[in-house]
Amino acid sequence: METRAQALRIDGARLWQSLMEFAQIGATDKGGVRRLALTALDREARDVVCGWLRDGGTSIEIDGAGNIFATRRGRDAGAPTVFAGSHIDTQPSGGKFDGNYGVLAALEVLRTLNDAKVTTEKPVGVAIWTNEEGSRFIPVMGGSGAFAGVFAIDYLLEQRDADDITFGDALRAIGYAGDAPLGARKLDAYFEAHIEQGPILERELKTIGVVTGALGQRWYDCAWTGQDAHAGPTPMGARHDALRAASRMVEAVNALALRHAPDGRGTVGFMQVKPNSRNVIPGRVVMSIDLRHPDDAHLGAMDSELRDAGSAIARELGVDCDLKQVVQFPACRFNGDCVALVRSAAQSLGYAHCDIVSGAGHDAIYVSRVTPTAMIFVPCKDGISHNEIEDAKPQDLEAGCNVLLQAVLARAGVATPR
Amino acid sequence: METRAQALRIDGARLWQSLMEFAQIGATDKGGVRRLALTALDREARDVVCGWLRDGGTSIEIDGAGNIFATRRGRDAGAPTVFAGSHIDTQPSGGKFDGNYGVLAALEVLRTLNDAKVTTEKPVGVAIWTNEEGSRFIPVMGGSGAFAGVFAIDYLLEQRDADDITFGDALRAIGYAGDAPLGARKLDAYFEAHIEQGPILERELKTIGVVTGALGQRWYDCAWTGQDAHAGPTPMGARHDALRAASRMVEAVNALALRHAPDGRGTVGFMQVKPNSRNVIPGRVVMSIDLRHPDDAHLGAMDSELRDAGSAIARELGVDCDLKQVVQFPACRFNGDCVALVRSAAQSLGYAHCDIVSGAGHDAIYVSRVTPTAMIFVPCKDGISHNEIEDAKPQDLEAGCNVLLQAVLARAGVATPR
Repeated sequence: METRAQALRIDGARLWQSLMEFAQIGATDKGGVRRLALTALDREARDVVCGWLRDGGTSIEIDGAGNIFATRRGRDAGAPTVFAGSHIDTQPSGGKFDGNYGVLAALEVLRTLNDAKVTTEKPVGVAIWTNEEGSRFIPVMGGSGAFAGVFAIDYLLEQRDADDITFGDALRAIGYAGDAPLGARKLDAYFEAHIEQGPILERELKTIGVVTGALGQRWYDCAWTGQDAHAGPTPMGARHDALRAASRMVEAVNALALRHAPDGRGTVGFMQVKPNSRNVIPGRVVMSIDLRHPDDAHLGAMDSELRDAGSAIARELGVDCDLKQVVQFPACRFNGDCVALVRSAAQSLGYAHCDIVSGAGHDAIYVSRVTPTAMIFVPCKDGISHNEIEDAKPQDLEAGCNVLLQAVLARAGVATPR
Repeated sequence: METRAQALRIDGARLWQSLMEFAQIGATDKGGVRRLALTALDREARDVVCGWLRDGGTSIEIDGAGNIFATRRGRDAGAPTVFAGSHIDTQPSGGKFDGNYGVLAALEVLRTLNDAKVTTEKPVGVAIWTNEEGSRFIPVMGGSGAFAGVFAIDYLLEQRDADDITFGDALRAIGYAGDAPLGARKLDAYFEAHIEQGPILERELKTIGVVTGALGQRWYDCAWTGQDAHAGPTPMGARHDALRAASRMVEAVNALALRHAPDGRGTVGFMQVKPNSRNVIPGRVVMSIDLRHPDDAHLGAMDSELRDAGSAIARELGVDCDLKQVVQFPACRFNGDCVALVRSAAQSLGYAHCDIVSGAGHDAIYVSRVTPTAMIFVPCKDGISHNEIEDAKPQDLEAGCNVLLQAVLARAGVATPR
């Protein structure tokens, strides 16, 4: 029999209204949002959402990385808090939903509890992490990474943007350098709702993705050095064509991802050719390589295959290959109990759902290192994100928020069933 | 028995001295030359070489494209002139020899005739063509192309450089807009000495390349359109990766050139990736394609194979391929008699030589459409040109100039053997 708490539903129209209102802060002509971390627009957005959170009766604390924790009192005021949240910074040409949805869905959960006058056993809260996108400052997921102890707060505060402004100075300038000790806060659990940023749910006609973890990632810089030469007089056999080598590497990256199907990913997103002139055989090409897999053992094998491919191509084409790993995220498995709460919420609410592995990075991945964590995905149009045309359906966003509500409630417990 | 004319040799030290002195005009720190067409440096170089030519007793005419024709009287003053020459404009980061060698070798031929007091039957002369490199104004080989009627002089004069200055205005500004009617001049023959700009002579240990013609060329712009997508969440099978398509095309271009070995050439020199971000699958790539072959039938087959490859890749990878031919030069065969004169000169002088086909464009290619023409190649270090480190050996340059002298003499005839 359904309890009163299980019968609670969020107000989808109010959630949509919050999303659309919030998207005005940094709105672009093409319907997207440009709201880089620790800018005046970020401050404006923080002020607005903190106002909404205070109106919702929460108490707000801010830590040294500018992470915001808004807590709604539980019956057991001393118990660790069940948090939901995400981030409110965007890509330079970002959309309305990436990050913002997770924060405003968490707010809507609190509003729903307030409306129904539900007291939870444990406190519940909203977490907002600083600089998730990494567009202005690297590292990406800076606030949650510092929170989880992945890197030191001092390291984070010293990072500089393209204008040579430090993270620390920018944070102080917008008034969000808080005094809550970083990482000292013990969370009972953390749930993050997010658009999928991929095409799987839409293609499979699922409303909810039960996120079981995230792909491990290895990023590389790969530089090929051959010899510039005139395209006309240089016979094919006398060439040291760096672009031909780079092109073979693109194929090798795709082939090795396919060898680790269905979850392997391999992408070359960046390539720069020199001298980049129509009738000159390129003597140098620099490219990025991005490998992902949910299993670190596979990722290790992919790394070996990549290095082998680089050596073989270099040998065969008489060019030099300089391959350097620049970033490594191990594969992440979310907490089984938290994932199960998301899955059973989707099931009991009757939403079409499937398990899914996140291909992208999220604050939840860092938070999961120190806190039982899970994520909820909802479909986005054509799988497109990091783009001003990013879009999602109101009913899917509402469904994801209802799942978030039920998962949080199940984890926090209800103190006063009537 | 060797005639007195056949026993004539050029002064290699004087030729080298001219080359080094001339290379000071626009000299770069790295030992190259930057002397773009119709600039103040081009004027200075024209003034210097015309001074040397007048000192050599020639009469100078300049046509409407700025082409310079310096003529040394023959016994039959009314006969068409046997010209030798090349160009004196350079690439932005050019070398000392490309073009300049052909002009100064022709000057050295006249000086040698003067020193020996040889009167030729037909007049002999030096031709200097405007804007061969095409670095400042397109089309490349502008002066010789207008001379040969490949394009109209008005079209040439209207071309604009990056600063929106027309060819015509720049030509007038340096005082080299001449009044000799363009293309009216009938040449008896045209010989052009040039560094090879490729590695073949050096590799084959030959001093002289007897140039039998030039590769036909087809240039293309190729644009691939797929779909930008996030590198993490997008499964391999759901991608429309424009860079993967472009990379396959690079391989296809190389493969089809090899199918038309040994003279086929296929090069992708330019590639631009969008959005060119490490973790975004590229939605658009624009690339150049350059195909060359000495036989137009082969070039036609290569064109078909290229189009087939584009369609097949587009179909297989679910992207759009927009392939446009932007330039076409038919294959060129130089005049058999002129080529034979070059070959027998190299042979009788005892220089190691081989027949060779020019892979690059040269003024001689356009001139050959209206005049019996041949070229002489000498080795350049590592086959490198269009580069400040371009280099050639004094003894090879001397050998090429001796071949030029003998070919010109054989064509012009000697009026006064003693």
